[in-house]
Amino acid sequence: MVVRVDLMISLDGFATTTDQTPETPFGEDWPRLVGAYAATRTFRERVLKDTTGAGTTGLDDEYAKEYFENVGAEIMGAGMFGLRNFPDDPNWRGWWGDEPPFRCPVFVLTHKPRPSIEMAGGTTFHFLNTTPDDALQQAVRVANGKDVRIGGGPTVVRDYLKAGLVDRLHVAITPILLGRGIRLWDDLRGLEAGCTIKAETSPSGTIHLTFQR
Amino acid sequence: MVVRVDLMISLDGFATTTDQTPETPFGEDWPRLVGAYAATRTFRERVLKDTTGAGTTGLDDEYAKEYFENVGAEIMGAGMFGLRNFPDDPNWRGWWGDEPPFRCPVFVLTHKPRPSIEMAGGTTFHFLNTTPDDALQQAVRVANGKDVRIGGGPTVVRDYLKAGLVDRLHVAITPILLGRGIRLWDDLRGLEAGCTIKAETSPSGTIHLTFQR
Repeated sequence: MVVRVDLMISLDGFATTTDQTPETPFGEDWPRLVGAYAATRTFRERVLKDTTGAGTTGLDDEYAKEYFENVGAEIMGAGMFGLRNFPDDPNWRGWWGDEPPFRCPVFVLTHKPRPSIEMAGGTTFHFLNTTPDDALQQAVRVANGKDVRIGGGPTVVRDYLKAGLVDRLHVAITPILLGRGIRLWDDLRGLEAGCTIKAETSPSGTIHLTFQR
Repeated sequence: MVVRVDLMISLDGFATTTDQTPETPFGEDWPRLVGAYAATRTFRERVLKDTTGAGTTGLDDEYAKEYFENVGAEIMGAGMFGLRNFPDDPNWRGWWGDEPPFRCPVFVLTHKPRPSIEMAGGTTFHFLNTTPDDALQQAVRVANGKDVRIGGGPTVVRDYLKAGLVDRLHVAITPILLGRGIRLWDDLRGLEAGCTIKAETSPSGTIHLTFQR
């Protein structure tokens, strides 16, 4: 069991953009930032429910498969779930449709908890007003020996990295410069200490970098 | 003939550090930031005058060789030459000893020009109080058809990148987080537009990324 992060960032370190609207919840740059991942066969199957076998099958797809493997619980911030965009809608159920790709308990950190939501396919959203550490302990308990992923956004991931609670950090760096958004790397000096580092590049230009403790 | 940049940066985008002293002109992090490059056979030969053949010979060394190949003139900022550390020493001749590794004319951008300095081995330092564009034109004239390198520091490189004057940008990304210093990537949104992008990783963990127009 490890505590994992898998995140896509731009070359200049932005993990999300700040020009979000309800129509483009991740900002106008999102398609370019996650393009290589969204093109994989695994993403198409798991997220888009495309069963035709379409999609790329190289290194990006291997990481996409790994993304979904052996995750027993996920933790995400309120912004990633969409509570910043839809703070007053008690029926908001996330961006991922009726059958979200997580297929495990998902803990959403928020100062305004709401009742849990059970979705099709094994995903249940729980809403917690608590510390990162306590949320992690709850996630570990329900993960049943499987991994816990800190899903995002970048601010939540940074909180967990700073607290030393992440065992494996995988960033997929898209070689584009966004110039704006929320930086993953702020104030993380020396994060690499004690880690083994693996770097691989895929034909899409994506750099897969893994820090493993 | 191309206008080139070759720069080493940390994963969080810092090209130099801000804790410089006369004893550690590039800051205490410098050895870790440039370690893979400084370990190459080419660096040892060309910069350290080590003729024993010691040093690494893999991908990092190939980039180190390329670094020195076909450069007809170089442009650097006052900080890289050391004028911020030794502003009042008219005899300051840079960090690189009597025979600097450049072996070509080097134009130092400064608001306080001083007389040119001819060094052993083909390097001459010229001091210019002018615009980036004009300095480039002067460098192109003396480069005799060879490449012109924008050597650094990051602020000067960024000026040239923003002005659209760079044909080839090679960054060697060292997988460490410095958390402080001068960022290369500030305010360069969309720099990748129209570029072909090459990404390679070396066993040292260094990511070599090239944007070519």
